[in-house]
Amino acid sequence: MSAPRLAATRSGALESIRANIRAMQGYVPGEQLNDPDILKLNTNENPYPPSPRVFDAIKAVLTSDKLRKYPQPLGDSFRQSAGRVLGIDPDSILIGNGSDDLLTILTRAFVPEGGLIASPTPSYILYKSLAEIQGARFEKIPFTDDWQLRFPWPRAELAFLPNPNSPSGTVVSQNQIAELAGQVNALVLDEAYVDFAEAGALGSADSASRLNIIVTRTLSKSYSLAGIRFGYAIADPAVVRELIKVKDSYNCDVLSLAAAAAAIEDQEYFRSVKAKIVATRSRMGYELARLGFAVTPSQANFLWCRRDDHPVKPMYEELKRRKILVRYMNYDGYDGLRISVGTDAESDRLLAELKTIV
Amino acid sequence: MSAPRLAATRSGALESIRANIRAMQGYVPGEQLNDPDILKLNTNENPYPPSPRVFDAIKAVLTSDKLRKYPQPLGDSFRQSAGRVLGIDPDSILIGNGSDDLLTILTRAFVPEGGLIASPTPSYILYKSLAEIQGARFEKIPFTDDWQLRFPWPRAELAFLPNPNSPSGTVVSQNQIAELAGQVNALVLDEAYVDFAEAGALGSADSASRLNIIVTRTLSKSYSLAGIRFGYAIADPAVVRELIKVKDSYNCDVLSLAAAAAAIEDQEYFRSVKAKIVATRSRMGYELARLGFAVTPSQANFLWCRRDDHPVKPMYEELKRRKILVRYMNYDGYDGLRISVGTDAESDRLLAELKTIV
Repeated sequence: MSAPRLAATRSGALESIRANIRAMQGYVPGEQLNDPDILKLNTNENPYPPSPRVFDAIKAVLTSDKLRKYPQPLGDSFRQSAGRVLGIDPDSILIGNGSDDLLTILTRAFVPEGGLIASPTPSYILYKSLAEIQGARFEKIPFTDDWQLRFPWPRAELAFLPNPNSPSGTVVSQNQIAELAGQVNALVLDEAYVDFAEAGALGSADSASRLNIIVTRTLSKSYSLAGIRFGYAIADPAVVRELIKVKDSYNCDVLSLAAAAAAIEDQEYFRSVKAKIVATRSRMGYELARLGFAVTPSQANFLWCRRDDHPVKPMYEELKRRKILVRYMNYDGYDGLRISVGTDAESDRLLAELKTIV
Repeated sequence: MSAPRLAATRSGALESIRANIRAMQGYVPGEQLNDPDILKLNTNENPYPPSPRVFDAIKAVLTSDKLRKYPQPLGDSFRQSAGRVLGIDPDSILIGNGSDDLLTILTRAFVPEGGLIASPTPSYILYKSLAEIQGARFEKIPFTDDWQLRFPWPRAELAFLPNPNSPSGTVVSQNQIAELAGQVNALVLDEAYVDFAEAGALGSADSASRLNIIVTRTLSKSYSLAGIRFGYAIADPAVVRELIKVKDSYNCDVLSLAAAAAAIEDQEYFRSVKAKIVATRSRMGYELARLGFAVTPSQANFLWCRRDDHPVKPMYEELKRRKILVRYMNYDGYDGLRISVGTDAESDRLLAELKTIV
């Protein structure tokens, strides 16, 4: 294989990169350290393995013919499986290389350069990066003190609403979703954490003014598949047809498509994992509160922990020294620790260390 | 899992989709039929299996811990492997979810809405779709009759030059690349098929005016990995740092990263596969010419076959009826069959059928 030696030289392409790209900081994902001894409670990965069926499904497509050929462009097999499980039309499902891919596709489909993206704050910080890449404006609308939406919103081309929200783990009501949908051109309900929410607590799109709502979901968290990158969007089939034009033709690979279909079909396993996480979340929240943290009641697989009596950043740093990673987040001075729900044993390890720190 | 029933209703989001998206046709990839009896010679997949090391590498990461955790955002292990094999700085390498992902990232990084993308014609038709999605203008510059570049080019924000080109399989000279690079802001040298080119025939970026050139490559073709979606770009590290801001944080999954590193490290296997394809290409080209096709001498893993005495579209259709898929391509009336190079046995099957058709 011939090596293009151009990499050794200075590239004049730098100055031709768009000013909005050069000016932006770039989204920084949570730390991914390679040390296997580190307890990772910083990126909301699931502490339990994926369904055993996932391994079988991947092995079944681990053939020469499947690897050397292109995958299904639209992921028809996954769409059939998910449609059956969710009770919806497979044509209303769009596959994505993780839900970040879907958020990117939606941004490109709805937001022109100079357009407006809105999202609540404090919330998922990627939304701002998506606006910056697109050359769009970005407006944050602060949550109320109890994590409900504040109105009015600007008439944005696209609003992103994570429900449950990160870092709070809170949900907003159906009425609020309907009101928001009425104030913006299109609303993306980012349901990355929806599978951890209590039925009933969830302000789903169901009876909301759903006319201009697109739902996104991921298999990274509730199905323990962050490593394989798979998410899906749900929208009207006519909208899905437009989004297909924007996505890369083969955005999901043959192994992740097989894994995703197997995972979503194993609802029994899914429910057992969810039950364990919900139970640990409850216990962890109680113990963290006993240690003096203000813990927001969570409908997700993480807990937002703040305190007034101590700065929390040194706690994050000390935990890291002790090989426990949590996420320190700072929104213009409003800061806290976002701690993923691990296994019971992992939670005990975290709590034991924290007891000697706080 | 709760089913959002919104899919059953009409979505008002449709009218909020950008006009450039609604107006475009959307790129249509080559047919991917599920019938295992079909001989696929339409999307330039490699007829040989990937390196045996690829299977071992995937199995080695098929663990609960690897699947449930996020992959390396920048693919450091792959970058180390590829840097070693190519003899270049790992920091000059950007990983992509197939080379389509890289072409998308480059478009977003260099081309504002209303900007200009240029590419030669007849060539890869995806470039026009990328311009349409970005809301950019697109200009085609016809090749000369012997598939060399015609000058001058407009001062485009980005030019795409596939080298070797599709559908022709031809390459342009180093001098032409240098001249083109001087006339546009940035030049993407799309080397999806470069691994099949003869050393020496290739007008590489090497001694060209490489100052504003970015090279993209894929493991889909020469490494038999179309199913796992993996490509990489080579550019100045300062340019790569900007492109990292544009890509999704985790654009490549843990299984494809492992597969890609294993594949590129097995250069001995790569060379043996390449030798077989180059030999079959030569024999196939000779036989197709004997059947009356005008076959363009190819540096890629496909052959561009035209004829004046017969329309070729009915041949494509008849071959499809006989379970052989080739790619019928029509560029404003200039049409032909693009036929992927298969194994010797596959080529024989194609030739035997064609003999009874033409």
